[in-house]
Amino acid sequence: MSVEAILRTHPRPAAVDPSVLARCIDECAACQATCTVCADADLAEADVPDLVHCARLCLDCADACGATLRILGRQTEPDPDSRRAAVEACLAACRASADECHRHAHHHEHCRLCEEQCRRCIQACEELLAALKG
Amino acid sequence: MSVEAILRTHPRPAAVDPSVLARCIDECAACQATCTVCADADLAEADVPDLVHCARLCLDCADACGATLRILGRQTEPDPDSRRAAVEACLAACRASADECHRHAHHHEHCRLCEEQCRRCIQACEELLAALKG
Amino acid sequence: MSVEAILRTHPRPAAVDPSVLARCIDECAACQATCTVCADADLAEADVPDLVHCARLCLDCADACGATLRILGRQTEPDPDSRRAAVEACLAACRASADECHRHAHHHEHCRLCEEQCRRCIQACEELLAALKG
Amino acid sequence: MSVEAILRTHPRPAAVDPSVLARCIDECAACQATCTVCADADLAEADVPDLVHCARLCLDCADACGATLRILGRQTEPDPDSRRAAVEACLAACRASADECHRHAHHHEHCRLCEEQCRRCIQACEELLAALKG
Repeated sequence: MSVEAILRTHPRPAAVDPSVLARCIDECAACQATCTVCADADLAEADVPDLVHCARLCLDCADACGATLRILGRQTEPDPDSRRAAVEACLAACRASADECHRHAHHHEHCRLCEEQCRRCIQACEELLAALKG
Repeated sequence: MSVEAILRTHPRPAAVDPSVLARCIDECAACQATCTVCADADLAEADVPDLVHCARLCLDCADACGATLRILGRQTEPDPDSRRAAVEACLAACRASADECHRHAHHHEHCRLCEEQCRRCIQACEELLAALKG
Repeated sequence: MSVEAILRTHPRPAAVDPSVLARCIDECAACQATCTVCADADLAEADVPDLVHCARLCLDCADACGATLRILGRQTEPDPDSRRAAVEACLAACRASADECHRHAHHHEHCRLCEEQCRRCIQACEELLAALKG
Repeated sequence: MSVEAILRTHPRPAAVDPSVLARCIDECAACQATCTVCADADLAEADVPDLVHCARLCLDCADACGATLRILGRQTEPDPDSRRAAVEACLAACRASADECHRHAHHHEHCRLCEEQCRRCIQACEELLAALKG
Protein backbone atom coordinates (compact mmCIF):
# COMPACT_ATOMS: atom_id res chain seq x y z
CA MET A 1 0.00 0.00 0.00
CA SER A 2 2.64 2.50 0.97
CA VAL A 3 4.31 2.86 -2.42
CA GLU A 4 1.02 3.39 -4.22
CA ALA A 5 -0.11 5.89 -1.57
CA ILE A 6 3.01 8.04 -1.90
CA LEU A 7 3.02 7.80 -5.70
CA ARG A 8 -0.51 9.25 -5.68
CA THR A 9 0.71 12.31 -3.73
CA HIS A 10 3.39 13.14 -6.30
CA PRO A 11 2.85 16.60 -7.87
CA ARG A 12 3.33 15.18 -11.36
CA PRO A 13 0.73 12.69 -12.56
CA ALA A 14 2.26 9.28 -13.25
CA ALA A 15 2.75 8.40 -16.91
CA VAL A 16 0.81 5.20 -16.22
CA ASP A 17 -1.87 3.88 -13.86
CA PRO A 18 -0.28 4.38 -10.40
CA SER A 19 -1.47 0.98 -9.23
CA VAL A 20 0.36 -0.76 -12.10
CA LEU A 21 3.49 1.29 -11.44
CA ALA A 22 3.33 0.73 -7.67
CA ARG A 23 2.85 -2.99 -8.10
CA CYS A 24 6.00 -3.19 -10.21
CA ILE A 25 8.01 -1.20 -7.66
CA ASP A 26 6.69 -3.37 -4.82
CA GLU A 27 7.52 -6.60 -6.64
CA CYS A 28 11.01 -5.33 -7.48
CA ALA A 29 11.56 -4.48 -3.81
CA ALA A 30 10.36 -7.91 -2.68
CA CYS A 31 12.40 -9.62 -5.40
CA GLN A 32 15.58 -7.75 -4.42
CA ALA A 33 15.22 -9.03 -0.84
CA THR A 34 14.10 -12.56 -1.76
CA CYS A 35 16.90 -13.08 -4.29
CA THR A 36 19.47 -11.81 -1.78
CA VAL A 37 18.24 -14.39 0.75
CA CYS A 38 18.12 -17.20 -1.83
CA ALA A 39 21.67 -16.51 -3.07
CA ASP A 40 22.88 -16.59 0.51
CA ALA A 41 20.92 -19.74 1.37
CA ASP A 42 22.50 -21.42 -1.66
CA LEU A 43 25.92 -20.75 -0.12
CA ALA A 44 24.88 -22.45 3.12
CA GLU A 45 23.61 -25.67 1.50
CA ALA A 46 25.66 -28.88 1.56
CA ASP A 47 25.40 -29.06 -2.25
CA VAL A 48 26.75 -25.54 -2.78
CA PRO A 49 28.71 -26.51 -5.92
CA ASP A 50 25.41 -27.42 -7.61
CA LEU A 51 23.90 -24.09 -6.56
CA VAL A 52 26.61 -21.73 -7.79
CA HIS A 53 24.70 -20.88 -10.96
CA CYS A 54 21.57 -20.18 -8.91
CA ALA A 55 23.47 -17.93 -6.48
CA ARG A 56 25.04 -15.98 -9.31
CA LEU A 57 21.74 -15.39 -11.12
CA CYS A 58 19.96 -14.42 -7.90
CA LEU A 59 22.68 -11.85 -7.19
CA ASP A 60 22.22 -10.39 -10.68
CA CYS A 61 18.47 -10.32 -10.15
CA ALA A 62 18.77 -8.48 -6.83
CA ASP A 63 20.99 -5.88 -8.52
CA ALA A 64 18.67 -5.40 -11.48
CA CYS A 65 15.58 -5.17 -9.26
CA GLY A 66 17.24 -2.64 -6.94
CA ALA A 67 18.17 -0.29 -9.78
CA THR A 68 14.84 -0.68 -11.54
CA LEU A 69 12.70 0.12 -8.52
CA ARG A 70 14.62 3.36 -8.02
CA ILE A 71 14.36 4.43 -11.65
CA LEU A 72 10.63 3.58 -11.65
CA GLY A 73 10.10 5.45 -8.38
CA ARG A 74 10.92 8.72 -10.15
CA GLN A 75 8.03 10.39 -11.97
CA THR A 76 9.68 13.76 -12.57
CA GLU A 77 10.49 14.08 -16.27
CA PRO A 78 11.46 10.47 -16.92
CA ASP A 79 13.36 9.38 -20.02
CA PRO A 80 11.15 6.79 -21.76
CA ASP A 81 14.05 4.85 -23.27
CA SER A 82 15.90 4.55 -19.95
CA ARG A 83 12.78 3.47 -18.13
CA ARG A 84 11.86 0.83 -20.69
CA ALA A 85 15.43 -0.50 -20.85
CA ALA A 86 15.55 -0.74 -17.05
CA VAL A 87 12.33 -2.78 -16.95
CA GLU A 88 13.65 -5.03 -19.72
CA ALA A 89 16.92 -5.59 -17.83
CA CYS A 90 14.88 -6.49 -14.76
CA LEU A 91 12.73 -8.88 -16.77
CA ALA A 92 15.75 -10.66 -18.24
CA ALA A 93 17.35 -11.10 -14.81
CA CYS A 94 14.10 -12.30 -13.21
CA ARG A 95 13.53 -14.83 -15.99
CA ALA A 96 17.04 -16.27 -15.65
CA SER A 97 16.71 -16.47 -11.89
CA ALA A 98 13.20 -17.99 -11.98
CA ASP A 99 14.25 -20.66 -14.48
CA GLU A 100 17.33 -21.67 -12.50
CA CYS A 101 15.48 -21.64 -9.16
CA HIS A 102 12.84 -23.85 -10.79
CA ARG A 103 15.50 -26.53 -11.34
CA HIS A 104 16.16 -26.65 -7.58
CA ALA A 105 12.64 -25.96 -6.32
CA HIS A 106 11.91 -29.57 -5.40
CA HIS A 107 15.09 -29.87 -3.33
CA HIS A 108 15.27 -26.44 -1.75
CA GLU A 109 12.26 -24.59 -0.43
CA HIS A 110 14.06 -21.22 -0.69
CA CYS A 111 14.45 -21.80 -4.43
CA ARG A 112 10.75 -22.61 -4.73
CA LEU A 113 9.77 -19.40 -2.92
CA CYS A 114 12.31 -17.38 -4.87
CA GLU A 115 10.99 -18.71 -8.18
CA GLU A 116 7.48 -17.66 -7.13
CA GLN A 117 8.66 -14.16 -6.27
CA CYS A 118 10.58 -13.81 -9.53
CA ARG A 119 7.48 -14.89 -11.48
CA ARG A 120 5.41 -12.23 -9.69
CA CYS A 121 8.01 -9.63 -10.60
CA ILE A 122 8.04 -10.81 -14.22
CA GLN A 123 4.27 -10.42 -14.42
CA ALA A 124 4.38 -6.94 -12.88
CA CYS A 125 7.16 -5.86 -15.27
CA GLU A 126 5.26 -7.20 -18.27
CA GLU A 127 2.11 -5.35 -17.22
CA LEU A 128 4.05 -2.14 -16.76
CA LEU A 129 5.76 -2.47 -20.13
CA ALA A 130 2.36 -2.99 -21.77
CA ALA A 131 0.96 0.07 -19.98
CA LEU A 132 3.98 2.20 -20.97
CA LYS A 133 3.53 1.22 -24.62
CA GLY A 134 -0.29 1.42 -24.52
CA MET B 1 5.21 -12.31 4.50
CA SER B 2 7.54 -13.38 1.72
CA VAL B 3 10.81 -12.31 3.36
CA GLU B 4 9.99 -14.03 6.65
CA ALA B 5 8.87 -17.17 4.79
CA ILE B 6 12.11 -17.49 2.84
CA LEU B 7 14.27 -16.62 5.85
CA ARG B 8 12.66 -19.55 7.67
CA THR B 9 13.76 -21.95 4.91
CA HIS B 10 17.41 -20.95 5.20
CA PRO B 11 19.63 -23.92 6.15
CA ARG B 12 21.35 -21.86 8.87
CA PRO B 13 19.18 -20.74 11.77
CA ALA B 14 18.95 -16.95 12.01
CA ALA B 15 21.02 -15.35 14.76
CA VAL B 16 17.82 -13.63 15.90
CA ASP B 17 14.06 -14.17 15.84
CA PRO B 18 13.28 -14.42 12.09
CA SER B 19 10.19 -12.28 12.46
CA VAL B 20 12.24 -9.41 13.94
CA LEU B 21 14.86 -9.79 11.22
CA ALA B 22 12.25 -10.05 8.46
CA ARG B 23 10.43 -6.99 9.71
CA CYS B 24 13.62 -4.95 9.54
CA ILE B 25 14.36 -6.15 5.99
CA ASP B 26 10.77 -5.40 4.93
CA GLU B 27 10.85 -1.91 6.41
CA CYS B 28 14.22 -1.18 4.79
CA ALA B 29 12.80 -2.29 1.43
CA ALA B 30 9.71 -0.10 1.85
CA CYS B 31 11.83 2.83 3.05
CA GLN B 32 14.21 2.57 0.09
CA ALA B 33 11.25 2.87 -2.30
CA THR B 34 9.39 5.54 -0.30
CA CYS B 35 12.44 7.76 0.12
CA THR B 36 13.23 7.46 -3.60
CA VAL B 37 9.69 8.66 -4.41
CA CYS B 38 9.81 11.47 -1.83
CA ALA B 39 13.16 12.79 -3.07
CA ASP B 40 11.80 12.82 -6.60
CA ALA B 41 8.50 14.44 -5.57
CA ASP B 42 10.53 17.18 -3.84
CA LEU B 43 12.15 17.96 -7.20
CA ALA B 44 8.74 18.37 -8.83
CA GLU B 45 7.33 20.82 -6.26
CA ALA B 46 7.10 24.56 -6.96
CA ASP B 47 9.11 25.25 -3.79
CA VAL B 48 11.97 22.96 -4.77
CA PRO B 49 14.66 25.27 -3.30
CA ASP B 50 13.09 24.75 0.15
CA LEU B 51 13.08 20.99 -0.35
CA VAL B 52 16.68 20.46 -1.40
CA HIS B 53 17.73 19.36 2.08
CA CYS B 54 14.81 16.91 2.22
CA ALA B 55 15.67 15.47 -1.22
CA ARG B 56 19.29 15.02 -0.25
CA LEU B 57 18.51 13.24 3.02
CA CYS B 58 15.92 10.99 1.38
CA LEU B 59 18.49 9.95 -1.24
CA ASP B 60 20.96 9.08 1.52
CA CYS B 61 18.25 7.13 3.33
CA ALA B 62 17.36 5.12 0.22
CA ASP B 63 21.04 4.23 -0.23
CA ALA B 64 21.52 3.22 3.41
CA CYS B 65 18.30 1.16 3.45
CA GLY B 66 19.21 -0.61 0.21
CA ALA B 67 22.63 -1.70 1.49
CA THR B 68 21.32 -2.67 4.92
CA LEU B 69 18.52 -4.90 3.67
CA ARG B 70 21.02 -6.85 1.58
CA ILE B 71 23.51 -7.27 4.41
CA LEU B 72 20.69 -8.33 6.77
CA GLY B 73 19.31 -10.75 4.18
CA ARG B 74 22.46 -12.87 4.52
CA GLN B 75 22.45 -15.37 7.38
CA THR B 76 25.49 -17.38 6.29
CA GLU B 77 28.38 -16.64 8.67
CA PRO B 78 27.65 -12.96 9.22
CA ASP B 79 30.19 -10.57 10.71
CA PRO B 80 28.56 -9.10 13.84
CA ASP B 81 30.41 -5.76 13.63
CA SER B 82 29.49 -5.21 9.99
CA ARG B 83 25.87 -6.09 10.60
CA ARG B 84 25.54 -3.80 13.59
CA ALA B 85 27.32 -0.92 11.83
CA ALA B 86 25.03 -1.34 8.83
CA VAL B 87 21.91 -1.12 11.01
CA GLU B 88 23.34 1.93 12.79
CA ALA B 89 24.06 3.65 9.47
CA CYS B 90 20.49 2.91 8.41
CA LEU B 91 19.14 4.29 11.69
CA ALA B 92 21.12 7.53 11.36
CA ALA B 93 19.92 8.08 7.80
CA CYS B 94 16.29 7.27 8.66
CA ARG B 95 16.37 9.66 11.62
CA ALA B 96 17.74 12.54 9.53
CA SER B 97 15.21 11.89 6.79
CA ALA B 98 12.27 11.54 9.20
CA ASP B 99 13.14 14.78 11.01
CA GLU B 100 13.48 16.79 7.81
CA CYS B 101 10.31 15.29 6.26
CA HIS B 102 8.51 16.22 9.49
CA ARG B 103 9.28 19.90 8.81
CA HIS B 104 7.43 19.67 5.47
CA ALA B 105 4.72 17.18 6.44
CA HIS B 106 1.98 19.79 6.78
CA HIS B 107 2.68 21.19 3.29
CA HIS B 108 3.49 18.04 1.37
CA GLU B 109 1.63 14.80 1.81
CA HIS B 110 4.56 12.80 0.37
CA CYS B 111 6.76 14.13 3.18
CA ARG B 112 4.15 13.11 5.74
CA LEU B 113 3.98 9.58 4.35
CA CYS B 114 7.76 9.38 4.04
CA GLU B 115 8.23 10.46 7.65
CA GLU B 116 5.81 7.71 8.73
CA GLN B 117 7.75 5.10 6.74
CA CYS B 118 11.10 6.28 8.11
CA ARG B 119 9.73 6.06 11.68
CA ARG B 120 8.59 2.47 11.04
CA CYS B 121 12.06 1.64 9.75
CA ILE B 122 13.67 3.28 12.79
CA GLN B 123 11.52 1.17 15.11
CA ALA B 124 12.35 -2.03 13.24
CA CYS B 125 16.09 -1.22 13.29
CA GLU B 126 15.99 -0.47 17.00
CA GLU B 127 14.20 -3.75 17.72
CA LEU B 128 16.72 -5.66 15.65
CA LEU B 129 19.69 -3.97 17.36
CA ALA B 130 18.21 -4.86 20.75
CA ALA B 131 17.71 -8.48 19.64
CA LEU B 132 21.26 -8.70 18.26
CA LYS B 133 22.67 -7.44 21.56
CA GLY B 134 20.23 -9.45 23.68
CA MET C 1 44.25 -1.30 -13.31
CA SER C 2 42.84 -3.09 -10.29
CA VAL C 3 39.64 -4.37 -11.88
CA GLU C 4 41.47 -5.79 -14.90
CA ALA C 5 44.10 -7.37 -12.62
CA ILE C 6 41.55 -9.19 -10.49
CA LEU C 7 39.44 -10.21 -13.49
CA ARG C 8 42.54 -11.91 -14.91
CA THR C 9 42.89 -14.03 -11.74
CA HIS C 10 39.34 -15.39 -12.00
CA PRO C 11 39.31 -19.19 -12.37
CA ARG C 12 36.88 -18.97 -15.29
CA PRO C 13 38.15 -17.27 -18.42
CA ALA C 14 36.14 -14.16 -19.27
CA ALA C 15 33.67 -14.51 -22.14
CA VAL C 16 35.33 -11.47 -23.69
CA ASP C 17 38.71 -9.71 -23.73
CA PRO C 18 39.30 -8.88 -20.03
CA SER C 19 40.59 -5.42 -20.90
CA VAL C 20 37.33 -4.56 -22.71
CA LEU C 21 35.29 -5.95 -19.82
CA ALA C 22 37.41 -4.20 -17.18
CA ARG C 23 37.21 -0.89 -19.01
CA CYS C 24 33.41 -1.09 -18.99
CA ILE C 25 33.32 -1.92 -15.27
CA ASP C 26 35.76 0.93 -14.51
CA GLU C 27 33.75 3.44 -16.53
CA CYS C 28 30.50 2.33 -14.86
CA ALA C 29 32.12 2.80 -11.45
CA ALA C 30 33.40 6.26 -12.36
CA CYS C 31 30.05 7.19 -13.91
CA GLN C 32 28.11 6.07 -10.82
CA ALA C 33 30.22 8.41 -8.67
CA THR C 34 30.29 11.31 -11.15
CA CYS C 35 26.54 11.24 -11.77
CA THR C 36 25.89 11.15 -8.01
CA VAL C 37 28.02 14.27 -7.57
CA CYS C 38 26.45 16.05 -10.55
CA ALA C 39 22.88 15.37 -9.37
CA ASP C 40 23.79 16.73 -5.96
CA ALA C 41 25.59 19.77 -7.39
CA ASP C 42 22.45 20.52 -9.44
CA LEU C 43 20.50 20.75 -6.16
CA ALA C 44 22.96 23.30 -4.79
CA GLU C 45 22.82 25.68 -7.80
CA ALA C 46 20.82 28.90 -7.69
CA ASP C 47 18.94 27.80 -10.84
CA VAL C 48 17.88 24.46 -9.35
CA PRO C 49 14.45 24.52 -11.03
CA ASP C 50 16.18 24.47 -14.44
CA LEU C 51 18.35 21.56 -13.35
CA VAL C 52 15.67 19.21 -12.05
CA HIS C 53 15.62 17.17 -15.25
CA CYS C 54 19.42 16.87 -15.14
CA ALA C 55 19.38 15.76 -11.48
CA ARG C 56 16.74 13.15 -12.18
CA LEU C 57 18.57 11.66 -15.18
CA CYS C 58 21.90 11.62 -13.34
CA LEU C 59 20.28 9.72 -10.46
CA ASP C 60 18.91 7.15 -12.92
CA CYS C 61 22.33 6.88 -14.52
CA ALA C 62 24.06 6.28 -11.19
CA ASP C 63 21.56 3.51 -10.43
CA ALA C 64 21.93 1.84 -13.83
CA CYS C 65 25.74 2.05 -13.70
CA GLY C 66 25.87 0.61 -10.18
CA ALA C 67 23.79 -2.44 -11.10
CA THR C 68 25.57 -2.98 -14.40
CA LEU C 69 29.07 -2.96 -12.95
CA ARG C 70 28.08 -5.64 -10.47
CA ILE C 71 26.44 -7.87 -13.07
CA LEU C 72 29.45 -7.45 -15.36
CA GLY C 73 31.84 -8.18 -12.51
CA ARG C 74 30.54 -11.76 -12.34
CA GLN C 75 32.13 -14.21 -14.78
CA THR C 76 30.78 -17.40 -13.24
CA GLU C 77 28.12 -18.86 -15.56
CA PRO C 78 26.59 -15.57 -16.71
CA ASP C 79 23.22 -15.38 -18.43
CA PRO C 80 23.88 -13.74 -21.83
CA ASP C 81 20.42 -12.12 -22.06
CA SER C 82 20.66 -10.55 -18.60
CA ARG C 83 24.15 -9.25 -19.24
CA ARG C 84 23.25 -7.72 -22.59
CA ALA C 85 20.04 -6.15 -21.21
CA ALA C 86 22.00 -4.68 -18.29
CA VAL C 87 24.52 -3.05 -20.62
CA GLU C 88 21.69 -1.72 -22.79
CA ALA C 89 19.93 -0.23 -19.75
CA CYS C 90 23.21 1.41 -18.77
CA LEU C 91 23.67 2.78 -22.29
CA ALA C 92 20.18 4.28 -22.37
CA ALA C 93 20.65 5.96 -19.00
CA CYS C 94 24.12 7.29 -19.91
CA ARG C 95 22.83 8.71 -23.21
CA ALA C 96 19.93 10.53 -21.53
CA SER C 97 22.24 11.91 -18.84
CA ALA C 98 24.95 12.96 -21.32
CA ASP C 99 22.45 14.75 -23.57
CA GLU C 100 20.86 16.66 -20.71
CA CYS C 101 24.22 17.54 -19.11
CA HIS C 102 25.32 18.82 -22.54
CA ARG C 103 22.54 21.42 -22.42
CA HIS C 104 23.99 22.84 -19.17
CA ALA C 105 27.69 22.25 -19.87
CA HIS C 106 28.44 25.88 -20.75
CA HIS C 107 26.87 27.15 -17.52
CA HIS C 108 27.93 24.46 -15.07
CA GLU C 109 31.35 22.86 -15.09
CA HIS C 110 30.04 19.80 -13.20
CA CYS C 111 27.64 19.14 -16.07
CA ARG C 112 30.48 19.44 -18.57
CA LEU C 113 32.59 16.93 -16.64
CA CYS C 114 29.62 14.63 -16.11
CA GLU C 115 28.78 14.66 -19.82
CA GLU C 116 32.39 13.68 -20.58
CA GLN C 117 32.23 10.79 -18.11
CA CYS C 118 28.89 9.57 -19.48
CA ARG C 119 30.31 9.63 -23.03
CA ARG C 120 33.28 7.53 -21.89
CA CYS C 121 30.87 5.04 -20.31
CA ILE C 122 28.77 4.95 -23.50
CA GLN C 123 31.84 4.14 -25.56
CA ALA C 124 32.93 1.40 -23.15
CA CYS C 125 29.43 -0.13 -23.15
CA GLU C 126 29.25 -0.05 -26.95
CA GLU C 127 32.65 -1.76 -27.22
CA LEU C 128 31.59 -4.42 -24.75
CA LEU C 129 28.29 -5.06 -26.55
CA ALA C 130 30.18 -5.45 -29.83
CA ALA C 131 32.63 -7.87 -28.19
CA LEU C 132 29.79 -9.90 -26.62
CA LYS C 133 28.07 -10.22 -29.99
CA GLY C 134 31.31 -10.79 -31.94
CA MET D 1 41.16 12.24 -11.06
CA SER D 2 37.59 12.57 -12.28
CA VAL D 3 35.85 12.43 -8.90
CA GLU D 4 38.14 15.03 -7.37
CA ALA D 5 37.75 17.27 -10.43
CA ILE D 6 33.95 17.25 -10.31
CA LEU D 7 33.89 17.64 -6.50
CA ARG D 8 35.91 20.83 -6.94
CA THR D 9 33.26 22.28 -9.27
CA HIS D 10 30.46 21.80 -6.73
CA PRO D 11 28.82 25.13 -5.76
CA ARG D 12 29.09 24.28 -2.06
CA PRO D 13 32.57 23.96 -0.62
CA ALA D 14 33.28 20.47 0.69
CA ALA D 15 33.21 20.07 4.46
CA VAL D 16 36.66 18.52 4.17
CA ASP D 17 39.71 18.62 1.91
CA PRO D 18 38.30 17.55 -1.49
CA SER D 19 41.30 15.34 -2.17
CA VAL D 20 40.66 13.35 1.03
CA LEU D 21 36.97 13.06 0.20
CA ALA D 22 37.62 12.12 -3.43
CA ARG D 23 40.15 9.50 -2.44
CA CYS D 24 37.58 7.84 -0.17
CA ILE D 25 34.92 7.87 -2.90
CA ASP D 26 37.41 6.46 -5.43
CA GLU D 27 38.49 3.67 -3.07
CA CYS D 28 34.88 2.79 -2.27
CA ALA D 29 34.13 2.58 -5.99
CA ALA D 30 37.16 0.37 -6.63
CA CYS D 31 36.33 -1.77 -3.58
CA GLN D 32 32.72 -2.27 -4.68
CA ALA D 33 33.93 -3.64 -8.02
CA THR D 34 36.83 -5.67 -6.62
CA CYS D 35 34.73 -7.31 -3.90
CA THR D 36 32.04 -8.17 -6.45
CA VAL D 37 34.66 -9.92 -8.60
CA CYS D 38 36.25 -11.70 -5.61
CA ALA D 39 32.90 -13.01 -4.32
CA ASP D 40 32.14 -14.34 -7.78
CA ALA D 41 35.61 -15.85 -8.24
CA ASP D 42 35.13 -17.65 -4.90
CA LEU D 43 32.03 -19.32 -6.36
CA ALA D 44 34.04 -20.59 -9.33
CA GLU D 45 36.85 -22.18 -7.31
CA ALA D 46 37.04 -25.93 -6.74
CA ASP D 47 37.16 -25.34 -2.98
CA VAL D 48 34.01 -23.22 -2.93
CA PRO D 49 32.81 -24.64 0.43
CA ASP D 50 35.94 -23.18 2.06
CA LEU D 51 35.30 -19.81 0.42
CA VAL D 52 31.66 -19.30 1.39
CA HIS D 53 32.56 -17.01 4.28
CA CYS D 54 34.81 -14.96 2.01
CA ALA D 55 32.09 -14.65 -0.65
CA ARG D 56 29.54 -13.56 1.90
CA LEU D 57 31.79 -10.89 3.43
CA CYS D 58 32.85 -9.57 0.02
CA LEU D 59 29.17 -9.21 -0.96
CA ASP D 60 28.53 -7.22 2.23
CA CYS D 61 31.56 -5.08 1.52
CA ALA D 62 30.42 -4.31 -2.03
CA ASP D 63 27.02 -3.25 -0.66
CA ALA D 64 28.48 -1.05 2.07
CA CYS D 65 30.98 0.58 -0.32
CA GLY D 66 28.28 1.26 -2.93
CA ALA D 67 26.03 3.05 -0.44
CA THR D 68 28.89 4.94 1.18
CA LEU D 69 30.31 6.35 -2.02
CA ARG D 70 26.91 7.75 -2.93
CA ILE D 71 26.32 9.33 0.46
CA LEU D 72 29.83 10.81 0.41
CA GLY D 73 29.34 12.09 -3.13
CA ARG D 74 26.69 14.52 -1.87
CA GLN D 75 28.00 17.80 -0.47
CA THR D 76 24.67 19.65 -0.33
CA GLU D 77 23.63 20.03 3.31
CA PRO D 78 24.90 16.68 4.57
CA ASP D 79 23.82 15.19 7.88
CA PRO D 80 27.03 14.67 9.89
CA ASP D 81 25.72 11.65 11.84
CA SER D 82 24.56 9.84 8.71
CA ARG D 83 27.82 10.49 6.93
CA ARG D 84 29.95 9.31 9.82
CA ALA D 85 27.81 6.19 10.37
CA ALA D 86 28.04 5.35 6.66
CA VAL D 87 31.85 5.57 6.73
CA GLU D 88 31.93 3.44 9.88
CA ALA D 89 29.70 0.79 8.26
CA CYS D 90 32.02 0.78 5.28
CA LEU D 91 35.06 0.43 7.53
CA ALA D 92 33.56 -2.52 9.42
CA ALA D 93 32.68 -4.33 6.19
CA CYS D 94 36.11 -3.65 4.63
CA ARG D 95 37.89 -4.93 7.73
CA ALA D 96 35.89 -8.16 7.81
CA SER D 97 36.46 -8.72 4.11
CA ALA D 98 40.18 -7.88 4.27
CA ASP D 99 40.75 -10.24 7.21
CA GLU D 100 38.95 -13.16 5.57
CA CYS D 101 40.60 -12.57 2.18
CA HIS D 102 43.94 -12.56 4.00
CA ARG D 103 43.32 -16.16 5.09
CA HIS D 104 43.02 -17.23 1.43
CA ALA D 105 45.54 -14.84 -0.10
CA HIS D 106 48.28 -17.42 -0.46
CA HIS D 107 45.95 -19.85 -2.30
CA HIS D 108 43.92 -17.44 -4.39
CA GLU D 109 45.38 -14.45 -6.13
CA HIS D 110 41.95 -12.75 -6.30
CA CYS D 111 41.78 -12.85 -2.51
CA ARG D 112 45.24 -11.31 -2.29
CA LEU D 113 44.27 -8.46 -4.62
CA CYS D 114 40.93 -8.00 -2.89
CA GLU D 115 42.60 -7.79 0.52
CA GLU D 116 44.91 -5.08 -0.86
CA GLN D 117 41.97 -3.11 -2.21
CA CYS D 118 40.04 -3.42 1.06
CA ARG D 119 43.09 -2.17 3.00
CA ARG D 120 43.34 0.86 0.71
CA CYS D 121 39.66 1.58 1.32
CA ILE D 122 40.12 1.20 5.09
CA GLN D 123 42.96 3.72 5.02
CA ALA D 124 40.93 6.20 2.97
CA CYS D 125 37.92 5.82 5.29
CA GLU D 126 40.11 6.34 8.38
CA GLU D 127 41.64 9.47 6.87
CA LEU D 128 38.23 10.84 6.01
CA LEU D 129 36.85 10.11 9.49
CA ALA D 130 39.84 11.93 11.02
CA ALA D 131 39.29 14.90 8.70
CA LEU D 132 35.57 15.02 9.49
CA LYS D 133 36.30 15.07 13.21
CA GLY D 134 39.28 17.41 12.87
